Amino acid sequence: MTFELKILGSASATPVLSRHPTAQVLTVGAHNYLIDCGEGTQWQMLEHRVRPHHLRAIFISHLHGDHYFGLFGLLGTMHLQGRTQALTIIGPPGLDEVLTTQARVSNMQLGFTMAFTPVDTEAHAVVYEDEQLTVSSLPMRHRIPCAGYLFAEKPRRANLLKDRLPAGLLPQQLARLAQGEDLEASDEQPGLRHADVAGPAPTPRRYAFFSDTLYTPALADLIRGADLLYHEATFLEELRERAAQTHHSTARQAAQLAQAADVKHLLLGHFSSRYKNLGPLLDEAHAVFPTAELATEGLTVTL
Amino acid sequence: MTFELKILGSASATPVLSRHPTAQVLTVGAHNYLIDCGEGTQWQMLEHRVRPHHLRAIFISHLHGDHYFGLFGLLGTMHLQGRTQALTIIGPPGLDEVLTTQARVSNMQLGFTMAFTPVDTEAHAVVYEDEQLTVSSLPMRHRIPCAGYLFAEKPRRANLLKDRLPAGLLPQQLARLAQGEDLEASDEQPGLRHADVAGPAPTPRRYAFFSDTLYTPALADLIRGADLLYHEATFLEELRERAAQTHHSTARQAAQLAQAADVKHLLLGHFSSRYKNLGPLLDEAHAVFPTAELATEGLTVTL
Repeated sequence: MTFELKILGSASATPVLSRHPTAQVLTVGAHNYLIDCGEGTQWQMLEHRVRPHHLRAIFISHLHGDHYFGLFGLLGTMHLQGRTQALTIIGPPGLDEVLTTQARVSNMQLGFTMAFTPVDTEAHAVVYEDEQLTVSSLPMRHRIPCAGYLFAEKPRRANLLKDRLPAGLLPQQLARLAQGEDLEASDEQPGLRHADVAGPAPTPRRYAFFSDTLYTPALADLIRGADLLYHEATFLEELRERAAQTHHSTARQAAQLAQAADVKHLLLGHFSSRYKNLGPLLDEAHAVFPTAELATEGLTVTL
Repeated sequence: MTFELKILGSASATPVLSRHPTAQVLTVGAHNYLIDCGEGTQWQMLEHRVRPHHLRAIFISHLHGDHYFGLFGLLGTMHLQGRTQALTIIGPPGLDEVLTTQARVSNMQLGFTMAFTPVDTEAHAVVYEDEQLTVSSLPMRHRIPCAGYLFAEKPRRANLLKDRLPAGLLPQQLARLAQGEDLEASDEQPGLRHADVAGPAPTPRRYAFFSDTLYTPALADLIRGADLLYHEATFLEELRERAAQTHHSTARQAAQLAQAADVKHLLLGHFSSRYKNLGPLLDEAHAVFPTAELATEGLTVTL
């Protein structure tokens, strides 16, 4: 089953022509989940062929504009495109009030319902669940309430191994095995244990999204061993004090957190507009976490 | 004195990659005025080198997202860039409530004050005035309250003609003449009338912005003889019924209004995303108003 992250925006708040504000799409199986939605995200979705129709839920980290000002336009476009399927939106309290106020002054009635889940940004708690994913909040430390999110795949059933299956099984027996059941012995056949004909169960995959945050080493415990971590890296270490003042992190700090959490991959993003060349940010991270990558527009990571 | 319109966006509500939603900048003398502010306008301003700092007032026609969803981000950027000068915003009632709600949930205190003027979208009335411009509302007919705007330059003083000025005038006498005053006769000099040494006063220029509207011929009277008319032209005449249903206009109707109002120039915009090629819209307008132009991104018209 697909488990893939696509980066739509790598910028921080001050706009620059070559970058876009924060937005990412996580594709799990046949479903897309949008993570943050800065201004212009719907054009980035057009550019990178992510269809709004296929969005199942939207996760907003916090209410600074570069993380959610694209949401209103995207909702309007879904409406114009005839969406009727309900949409789940998860974000800090207050987001629903903004959406409601906008809809009222525009006299806009969306053709679909929005189910809004307010997030307690101080807690690490489950905020969303469906048949394939459990998503929990990660308490970021920013100037306003801010949540990161941990996307954890639910355990998947092991695939059957063809070369271990006896000949002559009926389709309904195969279906039961595929669902993890054992076959009891009958007059015609001996019993068959699922465990004997299936491979090992795939390890569930986990993606941790660290939105805007002060470097907070204690968070490493919440994502230990995750397959992928995106961590904001607004500044270079030489601006460490400015990072602390504005509740942001440096590239080195992002790498330190990745190392402490023992994650498999690290992506850096949310780059300050002062860095025309992102090489020094990557170099700084590489000194601590040698496989770190820049989360630039269009980058796709398949787990 | 400069009187120049620059187009930043030509699209209607459904996003397409090659166009941007409605936004225009009118430059009069040293000041910029922004007209509508669809999502992504601040990147269009970067692209076309319009500095947010130099905006004196922002006029919003109506509260459909493709005309104002870029406003929040632009205000945030002005704040980040250190703006302290007050900003005037003119638009339909409700816009202030959205701005206030957004600022509250984001815990954002802008470094400058916003003076909001609600527009009566049913009236033709002065909504803004400064030393160089008088702006009045034009009652559009759309699905929600919507105003067009007429930007009328204030009368300018005639320039003095060097070859008519007698020799030996004192600097303070020249200054008085330049301000339109007459010089009285004295023992040393005969009197001098301003009218005798000045050229003709320049004709004040006028720009009419017709945002989303049903074709409304009666509006021609309000802008008769204007130097420039921008009129939405969402559809071709073959979709005239759809235009009426959605309270929009066709290219032919835009041209008919320009002809009836006897304006000097016509720009067409707000094109439906269904038209990949805009040629047929221009052809249709040309049959009625032969000098019509397409208001595409980057077009600059100097009056």
